[in-house]
Amino acid sequence: MILTTYTLGEIHEQLGGELIGDPQLLISSILPLESAGPDSISFLSNPKYRKQLQTCKAACVIVGESARELAVARGAAIITKDPYLYYAKLSQIWKKKQTFGQAAAGVHVQAYVHPTAIVHPTASIGPFSVVEEGATIGAYTVLKSRVTVSYGCHIGDHCILHPGVVIGADGFGFALNRDPNSLEWVKIEQLGAVRIGNNVEIGANTCVDRGALGDTVIADGVKLDNLIQIGHNAQIGKNSAMAACVGIAGSAKIGAYCTIAGASNVAGHLEVADHVHVSAVSTVIKSIPVPGQYTGFFPIDTHINWEKNAVALKKLSHLQEQVKLLEQRINEVSQS
Amino acid sequence: MILTTYTLGEIHEQLGGELIGDPQLLISSILPLESAGPDSISFLSNPKYRKQLQTCKAACVIVGESARELAVARGAAIITKDPYLYYAKLSQIWKKKQTFGQAAAGVHVQAYVHPTAIVHPTASIGPFSVVEEGATIGAYTVLKSRVTVSYGCHIGDHCILHPGVVIGADGFGFALNRDPNSLEWVKIEQLGAVRIGNNVEIGANTCVDRGALGDTVIADGVKLDNLIQIGHNAQIGKNSAMAACVGIAGSAKIGAYCTIAGASNVAGHLEVADHVHVSAVSTVIKSIPVPGQYTGFFPIDTHINWEKNAVALKKLSHLQEQVKLLEQRINEVSQS
Amino acid sequence: MILTTYTLGEIHEQLGGELIGDPQLLISSILPLESAGPDSISFLSNPKYRKQLQTCKAACVIVGESARELAVARGAAIITKDPYLYYAKLSQIWKKKQTFGQAAAGVHVQAYVHPTAIVHPTASIGPFSVVEEGATIGAYTVLKSRVTVSYGCHIGDHCILHPGVVIGADGFGFALNRDPNSLEWVKIEQLGAVRIGNNVEIGANTCVDRGALGDTVIADGVKLDNLIQIGHNAQIGKNSAMAACVGIAGSAKIGAYCTIAGASNVAGHLEVADHVHVSAVSTVIKSIPVPGQYTGFFPIDTHINWEKNAVALKKLSHLQEQVKLLEQRINEVSQS
Repeated sequence: MILTTYTLGEIHEQLGGELIGDPQLLISSILPLESAGPDSISFLSNPKYRKQLQTCKAACVIVGESARELAVARGAAIITKDPYLYYAKLSQIWKKKQTFGQAAAGVHVQAYVHPTAIVHPTASIGPFSVVEEGATIGAYTVLKSRVTVSYGCHIGDHCILHPGVVIGADGFGFALNRDPNSLEWVKIEQLGAVRIGNNVEIGANTCVDRGALGDTVIADGVKLDNLIQIGHNAQIGKNSAMAACVGIAGSAKIGAYCTIAGASNVAGHLEVADHVHVSAVSTVIKSIPVPGQYTGFFPIDTHINWEKNAVALKKLSHLQEQVKLLEQRINEVSQS
Repeated sequence: MILTTYTLGEIHEQLGGELIGDPQLLISSILPLESAGPDSISFLSNPKYRKQLQTCKAACVIVGESARELAVARGAAIITKDPYLYYAKLSQIWKKKQTFGQAAAGVHVQAYVHPTAIVHPTASIGPFSVVEEGATIGAYTVLKSRVTVSYGCHIGDHCILHPGVVIGADGFGFALNRDPNSLEWVKIEQLGAVRIGNNVEIGANTCVDRGALGDTVIADGVKLDNLIQIGHNAQIGKNSAMAACVGIAGSAKIGAYCTIAGASNVAGHLEVADHVHVSAVSTVIKSIPVPGQYTGFFPIDTHINWEKNAVALKKLSHLQEQVKLLEQRINEVSQS
Repeated sequence: MILTTYTLGEIHEQLGGELIGDPQLLISSILPLESAGPDSISFLSNPKYRKQLQTCKAACVIVGESARELAVARGAAIITKDPYLYYAKLSQIWKKKQTFGQAAAGVHVQAYVHPTAIVHPTASIGPFSVVEEGATIGAYTVLKSRVTVSYGCHIGDHCILHPGVVIGADGFGFALNRDPNSLEWVKIEQLGAVRIGNNVEIGANTCVDRGALGDTVIADGVKLDNLIQIGHNAQIGKNSAMAACVGIAGSAKIGAYCTIAGASNVAGHLEVADHVHVSAVSTVIKSIPVPGQYTGFFPIDTHINWEKNAVALKKLSHLQEQVKLLEQRINEVSQS
């Protein structure tokens, strides 16, 4: 493939910051500090990699004010308030110039769009994607290949839905018929839909179920990674982000600006406040009304150690009793 | 979309119960107690929402005998033994009247069905779904969009397979070639298939692998949510239900009427009795011969508390020893 | 479907070992010891099933040297060093003779392959699979139905990608714009791709994300089960195997010959040495430099016991303090 190239001057012109160095310098790759070459631009966002600056071979480094001297000592530099954000914006102008990997507006000839669906002319519907009856797809939204948006669901503007995403499959709702002669699950038809705001990105094979009564709602700016499950009637507040393999059960209400790390799970019918951060592989079973970082997973160990501690854990409550008893006894002994 | 409407009399005629109120009352939505309006029907199934009855604006509420007085005091009511089951059946007649979201019998023009596959004329095969050689799809079964049923697999009658479902991909089977010169995994071809009973529903992007030797079997009435993994040669007993993100490893045998809550995992080559209920995010590694509720996940906490307790947990077995020692010593002290 | 049949002699001729018994014996199924019939071949690989040999009805059993006598006492036998490996190879010749379930070389008429993609003529691209711009698919590689290989990604030779696999969706990368007036996530375009070696098998609905800068790399001989997430810029060493529902976060580097059991998770930016074995449902959050078996999940229990122990666990660090204090006090008491 043809690589993207920029001069330092072009980058600076589009993204700002303070440029120190030759604007004619040609940049043909963005690379991390340790693998950058003489035609690369790189960036320092985490202070712990600071010492890599000295040995970095990049033509230019994007750094914050505090690393100005170190950066300039070694070659060209762009000084900016938030180097990581600068890198994000740089990646965007880089991508735009590529001749490949661009979503074309319109409906791919091998897609399926129901005649009653409304797809904005600037939207892109990839091969083998499905947009069912009455669904709406907003401006500049991209459905990559093999995405399903079920009937009556709404996707806002500037969204990206990666391959395999399923929006609006039936929520998991059944009533148990307790009659002993016909003890079985009776389907609750899911009469709601899914409403997704603007600037939402949804990762590969992630599922957002339609509501039972009323809609499942994903607010503006939400970012979902791959293989996530969002249950029926869940509500995800704006700009919240979730890493891969997260599960959000039905009717959970997640606030705005939350982050939920990989493989965590949130039970249904509870509320998580704004600005709550859940660590990886943690299980939320009660509402969290106070912002902060919450964690709950079993620490890994060698198998042999784990086994010993796991056995002990099954008697932990008993151990607590034993200690309480010991405290009483020692009180008696020391008083006698 | 055109909304569904029913008169109370029509609902009562189709679903029974005791109707108190005007049969001509027009109902145009089913909604929860707190959001119901003057043209809604609502229901009370969980006694803890009982006080919402008084302020509920619904035209009619479906309630049990114990809430009769409260319900009648506020307007029309349907009295029935199991209001939640009544709601389930109401959702079904509601859905049937909708002009959208109905699966059409037949094979969609953009589906792929192998000539040797047998698809019942009443079945519905959605766009970009695949039915391979020798597979059979039963009466009234619906494959939504983008479902794969691999060669030789059987799906019963009245099943629903949601988008992205994969039935009959190869089970995960490899033998290690221990020869140091060619230390590698050798594929074990999966020579079995998948057999799925009647009235089974399978959620979006869920996978049921084909058996290695003999079949993977899902019995009648099983309900699987999204993103579930069923390993090769697993057997799931009738009317068992599993929530999203559950993993069932190979050759596990799950009984009938079990429920497995979200993100739980069951190891391979074990048996779970009928009527076992596994809580969310729990790991079953031994057979469970006794019905009941089983649980095992790390309780979430503030990160700072979790960290302290996680560190302590890695020394729990040692703590147990310490306590045993303390007991011995205090015995000595008190005897001296 | 027409069943595969082999004579014992044909099997022996192709796979070797020591055949004891009539080479003309007709074999029409491979089955486990307990369900084998008089036209079956079976195998004993796990010594704990040894006693099943005596009652096994198979025409022929594949066994190791140590079970020779037992096997011969009951009928025909093939003696080989590694019966499980022999079975794997037998399953392969068995499958090859089947008239169904064979991947045909070439691009299915209902697939989508971009004109700039390079698909080896021996490769098989199934219905509704997508191969984007500049992607390459190696010799004898099979993309079953509904697989996506995104632009610029490379799949080696002799790979199998099961239905629903997504290779090269965007990695999950965003920079937070901390400006309070536009507090939101800014997309980091994922400029790398995915490179997959030879003899790699990837299970249904598994996702391997493209790199942010540089590629995500899956080495030769890796085996991934279903519903796995491989984050951007992860590196998986050769012949490592992962069971279903595993999550590997971005930039994690997994060594060669590792096994990661089902539903385990590995955090990002860390290294796992060669020959590390992670048990099911375990969370790796630090590098593991030493080979061995590592485990970390909460042991399941009856719900009532779990609840007691979970409550105690939230005070475990406090319990540790109490025990320390008790030790001091008992020292004081016994010294007084």
